Amino acid sequence: MTINLKNFLGSNKKMSKMGDFQELKHIEGLQVSAVSADLYEGGRDDLSLFYFPGGANYAVAYTQNSIVSESITWNRENTKNNIRALVVNTKNANTFTGDQGLNSLNEIGKILIKNLSELETENEYGKTKIKDLMFASTGVIGEKFPVNKINASIPNLVSNLRINQNKLIWLKIASAMMTTDTKPKVAYSEIKLGDKIVRIAGIAKGSGMIAPNLATMLSFIFTDADITSVVLNKFLHKVLLNTFNAITVDSDTSTNDMVAIFSTKKIKNKKLNTISSKEALKFEKALKTVCLDLAKQIVVDGEGAKKFITIKIINSKTQEIAKKIAFSIANSPLVKTAVAGEDPNWGRILMGIGKSGETIDSKKIIIKLGELIVAENGKISESYNEEKLQEYMKWNSIFIEVDLKQGKEQYTCYTCDFTHDYIDINAQYRRS
Amino acid sequence: MTINLKNFLGSNKKMSKMGDFQELKHIEGLQVSAVSADLYEGGRDDLSLFYFPGGANYAVAYTQNSIVSESITWNRENTKNNIRALVVNTKNANTFTGDQGLNSLNEIGKILIKNLSELETENEYGKTKIKDLMFASTGVIGEKFPVNKINASIPNLVSNLRINQNKLIWLKIASAMMTTDTKPKVAYSEIKLGDKIVRIAGIAKGSGMIAPNLATMLSFIFTDADITSVVLNKFLHKVLLNTFNAITVDSDTSTNDMVAIFSTKKIKNKKLNTISSKEALKFEKALKTVCLDLAKQIVVDGEGAKKFITIKIINSKTQEIAKKIAFSIANSPLVKTAVAGEDPNWGRILMGIGKSGETIDSKKIIIKLGELIVAENGKISESYNEEKLQEYMKWNSIFIEVDLKQGKEQYTCYTCDFTHDYIDINAQYRRS
Repeated sequence: MTINLKNFLGSNKKMSKMGDFQELKHIEGLQVSAVSADLYEGGRDDLSLFYFPGGANYAVAYTQNSIVSESITWNRENTKNNIRALVVNTKNANTFTGDQGLNSLNEIGKILIKNLSELETENEYGKTKIKDLMFASTGVIGEKFPVNKINASIPNLVSNLRINQNKLIWLKIASAMMTTDTKPKVAYSEIKLGDKIVRIAGIAKGSGMIAPNLATMLSFIFTDADITSVVLNKFLHKVLLNTFNAITVDSDTSTNDMVAIFSTKKIKNKKLNTISSKEALKFEKALKTVCLDLAKQIVVDGEGAKKFITIKIINSKTQEIAKKIAFSIANSPLVKTAVAGEDPNWGRILMGIGKSGETIDSKKIIIKLGELIVAENGKISESYNEEKLQEYMKWNSIFIEVDLKQGKEQYTCYTCDFTHDYIDINAQYRRS
Repeated sequence: MTINLKNFLGSNKKMSKMGDFQELKHIEGLQVSAVSADLYEGGRDDLSLFYFPGGANYAVAYTQNSIVSESITWNRENTKNNIRALVVNTKNANTFTGDQGLNSLNEIGKILIKNLSELETENEYGKTKIKDLMFASTGVIGEKFPVNKINASIPNLVSNLRINQNKLIWLKIASAMMTTDTKPKVAYSEIKLGDKIVRIAGIAKGSGMIAPNLATMLSFIFTDADITSVVLNKFLHKVLLNTFNAITVDSDTSTNDMVAIFSTKKIKNKKLNTISSKEALKFEKALKTVCLDLAKQIVVDGEGAKKFITIKIINSKTQEIAKKIAFSIANSPLVKTAVAGEDPNWGRILMGIGKSGETIDSKKIIIKLGELIVAENGKISESYNEEKLQEYMKWNSIFIEVDLKQGKEQYTCYTCDFTHDYIDINAQYRRS
C-alpha cells in the first residue's frame, strides 16, 4: 500500500533520487550482524549489532518527548564519547519498563562484552567495556523487556559479525530494526576530502508512530572519515533541521526517536576542525544527501501513505517562521485528507498558514500547487484553472509552495497524505 | 454516521444531559428569521437574521487564525458596543474574497437597514444604522461572495421576523447555519437572579473544519438578562476556556470561528457589576451549562465521529500545563485511531503526555481508562486487565484520566475518534 516509487519519481523532476545505494562500498572499521532473538516469534531478524573494533567517535540526537525509552536513559547515564558497539532491538521499545528495563541493559551489556572479549585478545585498542556500549530499541511500550531472549542470542550475534562489504548486509541490518515499515531504508554517499575518498552509509526505520503501541524513527549513519565527536555533533545538528526534523507523518513524537552518526576514523583525511571550511561543507552536503534520502524514504513508507507532499515556504522573514508555517500545513489532517482525495483544496492550505499563529499579509501571499498559482492578491488567482489542478492532484508527488513576500528565508518540509490505510493500520491492530 | 446519543449517554453516568432544550421559553427582546437565499440551490434555509428591536449589549470571541473572514474584518471595523441585528449566512465563508467580500457587506447592510426601518417607525430606540449590524459567515473559502442572492432575500428575511416563542423556530435558525453538521444544535438554561427569572438560549454549528474547503464553529448565545457588554465579555472569556475552547475535532482552526453572547436587557435583574458576586456565579454556571452543552454537541457531531472522548488531567501544577497535556493527547491521530479501533492502547496516551513538552514525573503518573488503572509507578499497572479494558473500549463514550501528582490544578477537554468516515468526508468531497 505504499507509493509506487516509479510513478513517484516521474511526477516531479525536481525531486532527487531516493533509496538508491548501488554505489555503496564498505565502511572501514565497522562490523555488523543481525540475528533473530525470536522477539517476533517467527524467525525474522530482530536484533542487530554494530561493532567498531577500533572504536568510533559519535554524535546522537534523541527524541524531544519528555518520556523516553530506558535505552536512551541508559545511554545518557553510561555511554562515553567514544564507543565500541551499538545494540539495536525491535519489537519492544523498552519504555515504561521501569527498573526491569534499565537493569536488563546492564545484564545484556555484561554478556556482550564477555563475548566480544574473545575477539579482542589481540586488539591494540584493548577490550570493550560496559561504558563503550550504546543501545537503541523500538516496538511496544510498557511490556516487560525480553532480556532473556536477547541474552541467549548474544553469542550468535557476536559470532555472526562481518565486515559490511556485501550490499545485501545493509538491507539485512536495516530490515532487522523494522516494525511496520514495509521496506528497509538504506542510503549512501561518498566524497573526496583532499586526496582521500570517505564514505557515508546510513540506515533508518520509519517514523509513523507505528503499531502496536508506538514506535520510532531510528537512523544510524556511519562514516569512515576521521572526525571528532564534537565536530560530528555540529554536523548532525546542522543537517537534522532540513532532513529528519523536516518530516512529519502524523505529528506524533515517539518516546524512542534517535539519530546517531559514527566515525570509525579509519580514513586519514585532513582534519575537519570546524564545519565551515570548504572541505567541511563538502562533507556536510554528502551527509545531508544521505539523511534527506533516508528521511524521504520514511515519509514514502509512512503508514498508509499514497502520496508524497513537499511543502516549501519562501520569502519568509526568518527560517523559524517558515518552518512553523510549513509544519502547520503539513500536520493538518484536512490538508492531508484533501491530498488523499486529489482535491486541490487550497482553502485548507490557507487555513494551515493562518493557524500557525504567525503574522502574514494575506493580500501579498501567493499559493502554488506545482507550477499552478491558486491564490494571490488576497483572493483566488485570475489564472485559477480547476481542470488543470485536478489533473495535477493525480500525481503521486504533490508540491505546495507558499510565497510570503516578507523576507528572504525559506524552509521545506515533507509529509504524506492521510488515507483509510492509516486508520486501518492504527485502529485495527490488536495485540495477540 | 454520528454517535447514537442513547448508547452514548448510557455509557458514562457522570456525563451531563446534552441537547435537551425542552424547557426553552422565549428570550425577550429577540426576533428571529431564517429563509432560503438559494445559496445551496436546493431550497434549504441558508440565511438568518437575529433582530433586537431594543438593541443588545454583546461580547464576541473570534478565531485565533491569523487569516480571517471578511465578515469578521467588517465587524471589527464597524460594529459598535451595542447592536440591533446579526446576519448569518452559510455556504460561503466570505474568506479570501478581497474587496468584493468586504464591500458586499456594506451593500447588504444598506438594504437591511432600509427594510428594517419600515418596522421601526415607532420604535423608541430609533432606526437601525449600519454600525448596529454584525455579520457571520461559514462555508467555502475563496469563492465570490453571493451578494446578489443575499440582497434579493433581505425583504423576505425581514418580513419573516418572529418572536422566538416556538421551540421549533430554534431548530430552524440553528439549521439555517449548518454546513456538514448532521443535526441542529440548541441548548437552554434559566436561573433566578434575585426575584427575576432570566433565560439563556444558544445555538451552534459544527467545528470539524468542514467540507468543501473549510468551515467554522459558530455559536450565538442570547439572554434577556440585563448585563453590560463589559461584563458579558468577562463572562464569555471565563466560560470559553472550559467549553468551546476545550473541544477539538481535528486540531485545525477555521478562519471563521466566532462565539458571541447577546444581552437584550429586557429583564430588569439586579445589576451584575462584577463576575465574582454570588448572583454572577449563578449566571456564569448557567452560561457554562449552555456553552458546554453546545460544545459537546459539536464534538458528538464531529466529522465521522463514532466515539466521544473525555480527557481529564488532574493534580497538575497549573491549569495551563494540564490543558497542554490534555490537548496533546486529544489531538494525537494515534490516540484517536486507537479509540476508533477500540484498542486500549495506553502507550499512545503516554506518548501524548510526553510530546506535550511539559516536564512530568513518569514514575508518579497514573493513567486510567474509565475506572481501570492501566499504568502507574513507571510501568504497566499490576491490576492491568486486557479483557476488561477491551470491554470498556466498546463504549461510545471513553474517559481518559491522567493523574500527574504534581499539584492541584486540573483541565478537561473533549474530542472524538478518528474514523474512515472522517477521511471520506474530507477526502472525497468535490465541488460540483
